[in-house]
Amino acid sequence: MALLVQKFGGTSVGTAERIEAVAEKVRGFRNEGHDVVVVVSAMSGETNRLIALASSIMEEPAPREMDVLVSTGEQVTIALLSMALQKLGCDARSYTGSQVRILTDSMHTKARIKQIDEQRMRKDLNAGRVVVVAGFQGVDEHGNITTLGRGGSDTTAVALAAALKADECQIYTDVDGVYTTDPRVVDSARRLEQITFEEMMEMASLGSKVLQIRAVEFAGKYNVPLRVLSSFKEGEGTLITFEEEIAMEQPVVSGIAFNRDEAKVTISGVPDTPGSALSILKPVSDANIGVDMIVQNVGEDNRTAFTFTVHRDDFNRAKSVLQRVSDELGARGVSGDTKIAKVSIVGVGMRSHAGVATKMFEALSVEGINIQMISTSEIKISVVIDEKYLELAVRALHSAFELDKPGVEETL
Amino acid sequence: MALLVQKFGGTSVGTAERIEAVAEKVRGFRNEGHDVVVVVSAMSGETNRLIALASSIMEEPAPREMDVLVSTGEQVTIALLSMALQKLGCDARSYTGSQVRILTDSMHTKARIKQIDEQRMRKDLNAGRVVVVAGFQGVDEHGNITTLGRGGSDTTAVALAAALKADECQIYTDVDGVYTTDPRVVDSARRLEQITFEEMMEMASLGSKVLQIRAVEFAGKYNVPLRVLSSFKEGEGTLITFEEEIAMEQPVVSGIAFNRDEAKVTISGVPDTPGSALSILKPVSDANIGVDMIVQNVGEDNRTAFTFTVHRDDFNRAKSVLQRVSDELGARGVSGDTKIAKVSIVGVGMRSHAGVATKMFEALSVEGINIQMISTSEIKISVVIDEKYLELAVRALHSAFELDKPGVEETL
Repeated sequence: MALLVQKFGGTSVGTAERIEAVAEKVRGFRNEGHDVVVVVSAMSGETNRLIALASSIMEEPAPREMDVLVSTGEQVTIALLSMALQKLGCDARSYTGSQVRILTDSMHTKARIKQIDEQRMRKDLNAGRVVVVAGFQGVDEHGNITTLGRGGSDTTAVALAAALKADECQIYTDVDGVYTTDPRVVDSARRLEQITFEEMMEMASLGSKVLQIRAVEFAGKYNVPLRVLSSFKEGEGTLITFEEEIAMEQPVVSGIAFNRDEAKVTISGVPDTPGSALSILKPVSDANIGVDMIVQNVGEDNRTAFTFTVHRDDFNRAKSVLQRVSDELGARGVSGDTKIAKVSIVGVGMRSHAGVATKMFEALSVEGINIQMISTSEIKISVVIDEKYLELAVRALHSAFELDKPGVEETL
Repeated sequence: MALLVQKFGGTSVGTAERIEAVAEKVRGFRNEGHDVVVVVSAMSGETNRLIALASSIMEEPAPREMDVLVSTGEQVTIALLSMALQKLGCDARSYTGSQVRILTDSMHTKARIKQIDEQRMRKDLNAGRVVVVAGFQGVDEHGNITTLGRGGSDTTAVALAAALKADECQIYTDVDGVYTTDPRVVDSARRLEQITFEEMMEMASLGSKVLQIRAVEFAGKYNVPLRVLSSFKEGEGTLITFEEEIAMEQPVVSGIAFNRDEAKVTISGVPDTPGSALSILKPVSDANIGVDMIVQNVGEDNRTAFTFTVHRDDFNRAKSVLQRVSDELGARGVSGDTKIAKVSIVGVGMRSHAGVATKMFEALSVEGINIQMISTSEIKISVVIDEKYLELAVRALHSAFELDKPGVEETL
């Protein structure tokens, strides 16, 4: 008799048949006696179709009108899913973001949720209805339609779960859970029964894209138990939960994340004076270039070098901004490399275990992989290596930390 | 410096290019200094696409969910048209029915407008913006999305014009006005500069489908000057206005309407007692069959015959209902004919002119056309004839009443 918020993405509702399959799944939970709120995305392809229509009229349409346009995508899905549920004898009612009332700020196309009125949904749940809500959208205080940005449906689901104090927020996707690493790279990658919010955040931001990072943040902030499951396969998925409860049983390392979207840029021979980091990074951020890792090396002659990673798309812009900075500061020069990859080990267990870094570096060294940059946080260690060694590094680390063996949570 | 409400239907906004053409047209009016509120339908084909999606899930979906679904069609158009206007430098803002707030009753898929809040539109107009409103939709007092039924966009336009006390409500269609009769039947059919509401009502209900009849009723009730124009051609269109102002200048007959959607059913040898009409027509209306013309002939032996017309789709049902009635009443029997057509002459001038019926019957008689039924009202005379003579009858009447010659209003 739990209250569940379930979110189904675009692929899961891509056709009328798939919408009917979602309705079957939801009915299963209803038959077990659970209350269900369903959040859906637009049918796959629909948002792109609408954006193409807008593009055929003008290149940069007003964000307010874009939101009016693209929010129709989810509205179509909520109506169709409600019909499919009713066909199965499940009483259901659809709500747009505005109808629920999911109040957001007025930042069209990337609005943030400020408040959710759960009264209407509660009334329907009490009357035995399934509540079907359009993800990704809301309304500002002036009644304008807003959207939360792509992938915002996850955030909607988590926000509704928080407002309703749901027992669980279930995100149905095309993967059946969070894995120790990408199964396409490591055959023996294993689905995790559970993972902490912090680990999930690191995994998501590092490139293991299962959930929207904003949704995970939101879930963490409001203590919403979050579960990732497959729309197409049966299974328990992966529960994302709170460190405090499970840290004791966690393995040292939970997963290996990686990405190859980044490039590194180095400015060397920078006079080592207070404020030099600021004078280098401010022009970069002023140019709207996001910086990921930042490493400063101590050098000789009171000179130092900064290396940081940016998205590969921003590589050339970053280099030319830095060349200007280099000239101004009298630094030695700027160099860069796009053929890099970032590999990270993630695990809350690191906090209480020494020697994790040593083990990581050893595993890479055994394979003859040179480490170009290192960056650490409380629960992860990231290294930058030559892109061509990426798969080799991930497999070596996966094996070194015994991620192919069942974790503690499964042996209990 | 007028305030205009302009409505563009599905064909007029069927593609991105056509939406841009509508924007150009609207900008023309803005440049002349007019304030403009634009009402749009869904892009042609879109409503049918959405209905097909629903049908693929279930045959008779809940009306509430149908409204959530199909109302997205107009929402797409308002966003695209606002973008197209902004591209031309016309500040514009889109509103759904719910956002305006077009308050309706809760009769989903055929709701009626109860109240319109014009404050928000007024504010935009005062700020120099074009207001773009989704036709065909509204919201009930509980916040549920409603639709007015097919063609309801005309009604939306008229209702907004009434609420804003607009100077004119302009309905852009694929015809360039109201004609004396269907130009496909009579080559010399002429566009009318103006027509009265009453005549327009008769013309519309009789099959000259230019405007939704509910929109015309609404315009009449709230004294909204209504003009029908072409989206694609330049021209003044036809102004639909109030009898009081122009009756003096009106020709006797303004137009010839016709339809071939009806069938006639006769029940004969009915005992001529009080209540016999009721005992015949009540079972028909109980069977949800709409009746158009009703004619009762006096017969012999205290017996009488009733003939009436129904839609051809209802012909078989009507006949079997009447057969039952005939048996119960001891009438002689039931007969019917689907190969009929109805032709009507319409004109407010009839009120003050005698001999119009005579002239009509004479024109038909000259062509050897037998009249099967006659029905008259203050401003129209309808006859039922053999379907095969329909075109001939329309041409004969068009010529007899000199409709191919310019009317008085053009010679003034």
